[in-house]
Amino acid sequence: MSGDGRGATFEPPYFAAIFTSEMSDDTAGYDAMADRMVELAAQQPGFLGVESARDGIGITVSYWRDLASIAAWRANVEHAAAQRQGMAQWYRRYRLRIARVERDWQFERRQ
Amino acid sequence: MSGDGRGATFEPPYFAAIFTSEMSDDTAGYDAMADRMVELAAQQPGFLGVESARDGIGITVSYWRDLASIAAWRANVEHAAAQRQGMAQWYRRYRLRIARVERDWQFERRQ
Repeated sequence: MSGDGRGATFEPPYFAAIFTSEMSDDTAGYDAMADRMVELAAQQPGFLGVESARDGIGITVSYWRDLASIAAWRANVEHAAAQRQGMAQWYRRYRLRIARVERDWQFERRQ
Repeated sequence: MSGDGRGATFEPPYFAAIFTSEMSDDTAGYDAMADRMVELAAQQPGFLGVESARDGIGITVSYWRDLASIAAWRANVEHAAAQRQGMAQWYRRYRLRIARVERDWQFERRQ
């Protein structure tokens, strides 16, 4: 899965939620939930973008205007239900880090 | 590719270098370079860990004690050569974000 927001430019400072996870053996329903969470996150105030890859471990980094936006997203009712199911079923382990993006650089190849 | 450092605990604040990339069509030599860069990064002062996944886009998040450690790693001669080859050959685009990790949480399933 890859997310949108790759090419977006937003001025630092902004915030990143770095979510890294290892799956359990019971992944039934996971992909649909993950797609739905990306769709739902994109509707939240302060959402800037998301990038995601899974390859042994999963890494999803979502970008937000401020900490209040992240707190509101974590408390979203549908998201909170997904978090509970994640702990009960899908994830063997995860880590969530909240970070303040202070600088960024980008490179894009000339065609 | 998945990295080490997943289970490591380090107290915030610390720093994350969030590197997201899309490959070009010319990936010859890339995997060997990527493995070497993980090995080399782990030898640098201030290195705390790295997590990486590629799946459409690549996301590598490395963790560092402070900004000076990241600056030194970016300037490392062998790393700088890899960066130049990345722009010349391997990457269609990339973005590097430097972020200050302010909080983290982890979950691990009881066996």
